[in-house]
Amino acid sequence: MKTKELIEAGRDFYRRGWSLGTSSNYSAVVSREPLQLLLTASGFDKGNLTEDHFVVVDGSGNLARPSEHKPSAETALHTMLARVLGAGAILHTHSVAATVLSQAHCHEGFLNISGYEMLKGLSGVKTHETAFNLVIFPNTQDIAALANEVEARLLDPENPLRHGFLLSGHGLYTWGQDVTEARRHVEVLEFLLEVLLRRQQHPCSL
Amino acid sequence: MKTKELIEAGRDFYRRGWSLGTSSNYSAVVSREPLQLLLTASGFDKGNLTEDHFVVVDGSGNLARPSEHKPSAETALHTMLARVLGAGAILHTHSVAATVLSQAHCHEGFLNISGYEMLKGLSGVKTHETAFNLVIFPNTQDIAALANEVEARLLDPENPLRHGFLLSGHGLYTWGQDVTEARRHVEVLEFLLEVLLRRQQHPCSL
Amino acid sequence: MKTKELIEAGRDFYRRGWSLGTSSNYSAVVSREPLQLLLTASGFDKGNLTEDHFVVVDGSGNLARPSEHKPSAETALHTMLARVLGAGAILHTHSVAATVLSQAHCHEGFLNISGYEMLKGLSGVKTHETAFNLVIFPNTQDIAALANEVEARLLDPENPLRHGFLLSGHGLYTWGQDVTEARRHVEVLEFLLEVLLRRQQHPCSL
Amino acid sequence: MKTKELIEAGRDFYRRGWSLGTSSNYSAVVSREPLQLLLTASGFDKGNLTEDHFVVVDGSGNLARPSEHKPSAETALHTMLARVLGAGAILHTHSVAATVLSQAHCHEGFLNISGYEMLKGLSGVKTHETAFNLVIFPNTQDIAALANEVEARLLDPENPLRHGFLLSGHGLYTWGQDVTEARRHVEVLEFLLEVLLRRQQHPCSL
Repeated sequence: MKTKELIEAGRDFYRRGWSLGTSSNYSAVVSREPLQLLLTASGFDKGNLTEDHFVVVDGSGNLARPSEHKPSAETALHTMLARVLGAGAILHTHSVAATVLSQAHCHEGFLNISGYEMLKGLSGVKTHETAFNLVIFPNTQDIAALANEVEARLLDPENPLRHGFLLSGHGLYTWGQDVTEARRHVEVLEFLLEVLLRRQQHPCSL
Repeated sequence: MKTKELIEAGRDFYRRGWSLGTSSNYSAVVSREPLQLLLTASGFDKGNLTEDHFVVVDGSGNLARPSEHKPSAETALHTMLARVLGAGAILHTHSVAATVLSQAHCHEGFLNISGYEMLKGLSGVKTHETAFNLVIFPNTQDIAALANEVEARLLDPENPLRHGFLLSGHGLYTWGQDVTEARRHVEVLEFLLEVLLRRQQHPCSL
Repeated sequence: MKTKELIEAGRDFYRRGWSLGTSSNYSAVVSREPLQLLLTASGFDKGNLTEDHFVVVDGSGNLARPSEHKPSAETALHTMLARVLGAGAILHTHSVAATVLSQAHCHEGFLNISGYEMLKGLSGVKTHETAFNLVIFPNTQDIAALANEVEARLLDPENPLRHGFLLSGHGLYTWGQDVTEARRHVEVLEFLLEVLLRRQQHPCSL
Repeated sequence: MKTKELIEAGRDFYRRGWSLGTSSNYSAVVSREPLQLLLTASGFDKGNLTEDHFVVVDGSGNLARPSEHKPSAETALHTMLARVLGAGAILHTHSVAATVLSQAHCHEGFLNISGYEMLKGLSGVKTHETAFNLVIFPNTQDIAALANEVEARLLDPENPLRHGFLLSGHGLYTWGQDVTEARRHVEVLEFLLEVLLRRQQHPCSL
């Protein structure tokens, strides 16, 4: 069931150009105690996933069931988000807008997204008058260190990171209580990133 | 039948990126006396609507048939448009172009759209030489007040609002005598918004 | 057979956003002596055409077979192109790029398109080193006068109009010996218009 | 099997607008000794390829099996890439972004693509910190001379051309050990070209 939902998410994201070139990875929690996640295996076309393109990993990111495939290189982010936030599904996409904006604004460390009705598609947001900062982390191949850095921001007592984050020149991570909610968050945030990118190019902003 | 037409509209709008993230809402009048509208329920994916994702409301926006779902939060706009204009179908979409332009031009209160052949796709327009002002209202979560404000503009004796309107940073409302005409109006206006946005970025306009 | 080809062309053009809102019209010659064209009837959704959405007109644009539908308002352009050029199919599309560029460059009267490999997709063009001027006519609702004006340019002995033309703020007309060739010409020209629009927005051009 | 993979690649590239108007050509090696390639025949719609739209050519680009069709005009590039690099599949696409950027940067001779996570989708690239120059050759109709020029760059002992190249105002060539890898490389490079084009239009870059 969750496999099917992730397969359908991949088909749609691929069609929209958000998961080209075997980029992206998706997961869903299949057990809480012990923590186990269904996760896309490394290196497959996200537009044509089948059940064979997933692995099951434990809370440490090791294979919980034998598989000939390797888990995604970014497994540690998925397991951390499932553990720290209790997220039921985590989706990571690579869109053109996320790549351009995360690189252009990386030195500021966040993108301010305020005043848009679409923000109400984020879980818990009740009005467009919300001011939301989408945090941007510098990209790295050291996923363990990155997971620690993100975890510290999630647990920040004053201004905890919420809803999702960008990796510079790389893409978007977001999550939800289940695949349906996580997929809605991908659509909301990717839509808003496209709005921001085109808004910045509008003559009123130049 | 009307349910099927709204389901197909949703599938196409979702594919085009005009109804992402459970945004948008669609309605069709199913009875005039008393007024009853078939309306999308709140919070469902518009690309995969089924008969179960609709409710029937009366002219006051209350459920006319028992349902476990809630009507859209913007029901009062739909019922007002059906009542005041006699519209048979009302469609609300959230596109990138509508979001960017409605926000950039909100302080002016309208977008001038003139000289385009596509305007002839709006009911009653016979020539591209029509000058059309697409009115923009500031966004609000007070839908009752907004419905009153829009109604006053629809009934303005000198310059009545016609064809559709924008909510700033939010999206487009348009309507028609039936779902087919309302859907044509969505396509015409969304096309023209995309034209305007790209025209404004053209070097001749900078 | 030709009906089916035009139906498929419409489905693809609609999907790409080149024939939204019941805009556009398509024709194919079904008889030469006397001249008769299969032509889209006025006012139907181009993404969902059926055999019932076509009429057959004679060389003067009158119905050659009884029909409850009206021929397209732009019939005179189709019959003229079939008569003067011997075109076997004529396709008219309304894209965002064609609308923006035809309006921005209307005062010059043409768009220069040179140096692109894609030009070789136009019938008779053998090298990208071809310099091609895509003629732009001011838009009008007087289709008879426009047809005469275009005909004069087609018959210009020194610099005859070839491959297609734009109507300002309106769209593209192109043609071919059959539907396959005409559709290839639509794709080539719409591609090149999108290239030009984005090229003009490139910082090297500002 | 390889025919089917190339047919599916064509359907997807056509849908994305990377192979419009019968542009593009695709090949896969079917025999190494002697070298034989399955290659798209000249002049067919890439969105609707069938087995009949392919030819088999030998290492010199001559038909290795009788056919009523002509091999693509760019056959010599395919056979050279298969011979010099041992590529198992070669894909050539014509996108808007590749056309605009290759023309705008042709005088520099390359596009610098650095710092993007998506680069890891290129075979052998392990980190986004890779600096990659995508070489641009001036366009020409002398394919034999072009093939020699590209071959010299592939064999350059100091800085051999890798991953793909652009032809100015024309499009992208890339390859892989099989159709799956070559198609991944098309998606990665076309994605990055779109990123670069939009990045250059971003106000931070103006």
